[in-house]
Amino acid sequence: MSFGFMGERFVATYRLTGNERDARAKAEDICLEQTVELPDALVTQNYIREHVFGRIESLEPSAENIFTARISFAVEIVAGELTQLLNVLFGNISLKPGIRLEKFELPPSMLEKFRGPRYGRAGLRERLKIPERPLFCTALKPMGLLARELAELAYQFALDGIDIIKDDHGLAEQHTAEFNERVERCAQAVARANQETGGSSIYAPNITAPSGYEYGSALEAKRHGAGAVLLCPGIAGLSVMQMLANDTDFDLPILAHPAFQGSFVTSPDNGISHFCLFGQLNRLAGADAAIFPNFGGRFSFSQDECHAIVNGCNVEMGNIAPIFPTPAGGMNLERVPEMRAMYGRDVIFLIGAGLRSHSSDLVANCRYFRELVEKM
Amino acid sequence: MSFGFMGERFVATYRLTGNERDARAKAEDICLEQTVELPDALVTQNYIREHVFGRIESLEPSAENIFTARISFAVEIVAGELTQLLNVLFGNISLKPGIRLEKFELPPSMLEKFRGPRYGRAGLRERLKIPERPLFCTALKPMGLLARELAELAYQFALDGIDIIKDDHGLAEQHTAEFNERVERCAQAVARANQETGGSSIYAPNITAPSGYEYGSALEAKRHGAGAVLLCPGIAGLSVMQMLANDTDFDLPILAHPAFQGSFVTSPDNGISHFCLFGQLNRLAGADAAIFPNFGGRFSFSQDECHAIVNGCNVEMGNIAPIFPTPAGGMNLERVPEMRAMYGRDVIFLIGAGLRSHSSDLVANCRYFRELVEKM
Repeated sequence: MSFGFMGERFVATYRLTGNERDARAKAEDICLEQTVELPDALVTQNYIREHVFGRIESLEPSAENIFTARISFAVEIVAGELTQLLNVLFGNISLKPGIRLEKFELPPSMLEKFRGPRYGRAGLRERLKIPERPLFCTALKPMGLLARELAELAYQFALDGIDIIKDDHGLAEQHTAEFNERVERCAQAVARANQETGGSSIYAPNITAPSGYEYGSALEAKRHGAGAVLLCPGIAGLSVMQMLANDTDFDLPILAHPAFQGSFVTSPDNGISHFCLFGQLNRLAGADAAIFPNFGGRFSFSQDECHAIVNGCNVEMGNIAPIFPTPAGGMNLERVPEMRAMYGRDVIFLIGAGLRSHSSDLVANCRYFRELVEKM
Repeated sequence: MSFGFMGERFVATYRLTGNERDARAKAEDICLEQTVELPDALVTQNYIREHVFGRIESLEPSAENIFTARISFAVEIVAGELTQLLNVLFGNISLKPGIRLEKFELPPSMLEKFRGPRYGRAGLRERLKIPERPLFCTALKPMGLLARELAELAYQFALDGIDIIKDDHGLAEQHTAEFNERVERCAQAVARANQETGGSSIYAPNITAPSGYEYGSALEAKRHGAGAVLLCPGIAGLSVMQMLANDTDFDLPILAHPAFQGSFVTSPDNGISHFCLFGQLNRLAGADAAIFPNFGGRFSFSQDECHAIVNGCNVEMGNIAPIFPTPAGGMNLERVPEMRAMYGRDVIFLIGAGLRSHSSDLVANCRYFRELVEKM
C-alpha cells in the first residue's frame, strides 16, 4: 500500500558545515526533522518510511568542512501550499546551526500549483512600454513629508522620466501622509506628468499593512490609479504576496522589498541563500521585481551575492516567469556605469537619495541618470 | 510647527558590535535608516529632524567591542500598526551586519493599541481549569498517519491526562489527513475522552495556511470543537496572529510555533534576541503560549537563551498579559525534573517523541510524565 503517495519528489539543496560524519548526521536529521519529527525507530509504518521521510539523494564535499546535501521530499507533503513548502524546506531546521538552504527544484506538477509573478519581466516591460532598456526607479521620502509634498516629488520624478516611483517602504499610515490621501495624490500627480510628457511612468505605493488590510490597500491603490504596489514579504509574509499575485480583482505588478529579511542571509553557514530567498522564493510567491541592497552601497551584500540574486531571478523554473532584479540601497549616480556593466539590461535601477544628492537640480540629476544608462 | 508630532517616543535597544566609533556610527545610521532613509544633509525640514529621526538616548559599552544603544522613535511613525512597528524596529537594518535588536519599550499609549494575548497565562489556566501546576502538552505525529489514526492518538493522550494535544506543525493539508477531517475527528476524540475522564483536555490543530485561508481554518477549528490553535508566525506572519487574537468571531487561545524563525536568533551579533522575538513580539502579536526549543534537546538553544524567553514571556508590558513559555524539542522524560526546577510552575511542558519512547506503554508514560511534574 502506498496510501496515495505516487513517488514524485522535489529536491532541496542544503549547505552543511562540519566534517563528513557531522554533515551526514545533519542530512539524516533533516530527513526526519522536516517531516515526521520522530526518531527513526518510532516510525513503524513502511509507507511513511518510504514516502514521508526525506531522502538523501547526494552528499558531496564542496570545501573544507562544507558539504552539499540534496534531499528529496514527497510532493504530497506540501499539498500545493506555499506556507507548507516554506515549512518543509526550512521550518524547524532554521533553528539548528550549520544548515543553509541553498536552492530548491520542484517538478512541473508542483510548479503548476503556483502562478508565480503575474507579469514577470516581459509583462512589466509590456505594461511600461519599455521593450529593451533597463528601468528607472526611485523612492518617495522622507517619512514625515505631507502627502501633497510627496505627490509633488512624484510629479517631478515622473516629469523627469523615472519609470517607477515607489513609496519608501517606511511610508505606512503616518498621520502626515495617510495611505488613502497619499495614494490618491501621488497617483494623480504621476498621471498629470504622463499627460504632459506622453510617458508611462507609474506610482507604486507601499501596501504593507496589518493582516487583513493589505488586500484592501491593494484594491485602493488600483482604484486610485497606482501602476504597481510595493510589499515587504518579510513583514507581511510571502504568502500574502502570493495571494495578491493570484487574486482576480487585484491585477497590478508587485515589487518585493527586503525589509526584515536580512537575518536569513547574514551568515554563510545558516539561513537561506540570496539566490533562493530573494530570487526563487520571491518569484514563486509572485513578485515581479525583487529589490535588494546592491554591493558597495550602504549595505553589505557582496558582488557575488548580488550575482546570485540575479541568477535566482532568472533561473529556469518551468511556468514561473523570470523577474527583475532591482538593486538599490545608497547608490549614487557615479556607480551607474559599473551597475550597468554588471546587471546588463534586464534590471531595474532603484536610486533614491543619489538622485537628490548629485546636485541640487532634480531635473538635471534625473536626466543624467537616464543618460548614463541609455548611452551604454 | 510640530506637524502633529506630540513628542512621545518609544525605545528600542540594540546590541552593536565594533569599537566605540563603529558603534556610534551604527547607532547614528539606525536613526536615519529606520526612518527617513536619507542622509542627514538631504533632510531640511526641522520638524522631521526633530521628530522623525531616530534619537540616540544612550550608548554604553557592555563588553569588549560590544555596545548597547537605546534609540527612541516617535510613536506617530508606527501609527499603531504591528507591521510598521516591525519595520521601524528592524526592517532595513536586518540587512546590516553587527546589529541585534535586544528589546523594545512602548509607552502605554502605544501598548493600548495592541490587545496582546486574548487569554494569556491566567486566562488559559482558567479555561483549562488548572489553577497552579504546569500544563502538559504533546503533539500528534508523524505526518503521513491517517486522520483516524491521529484521532486515536489524540484520544489516548486525552485519556492519559495530557492537557493540550496539538497537531505537529508539519500537519497541513496532506491527503492522508486533510484539515477538516483531521480537526473534526481529533476534536471529537478529545471530547470523548473528556467525557470518560471528566477532564478538560483540548485539541489544538495547526491552522498555518496560505494567506486568506488561516482565518477560515481558525473558524473551522472552533466550529469542530478545538480548544486552541497552533500557528507558525514565522511562516504566516506575526500580523496574522494579531488578526486572529483580535477577531471577534474567533476566540480560541493561540500557541505560537517557532518554525522558520531560527535565522533571527542564530548569531549573537545579528538578528533579534530570544527575549524579544519569542517573548515580547509573540506577546504583542497575541500568542497565549510561545513554543521554543528547550536547551539540551535536539536543538541548540542555551539555558540562558531559554531563560531570556521566559523573561520575555513575563516582563511587564502594561496591558499586554504574560504568556506561557512552552519549552519543547526532543525532550525526554528523564529531563522533566531539571526542566521543572528551571521553569517553575508557569510553564507548558511540550513533550512529543519522549512520551512514546520512554516505554512502549503510552498510558504508563503519560502517567509517569504527570507524576514527575506533580510531585515537585
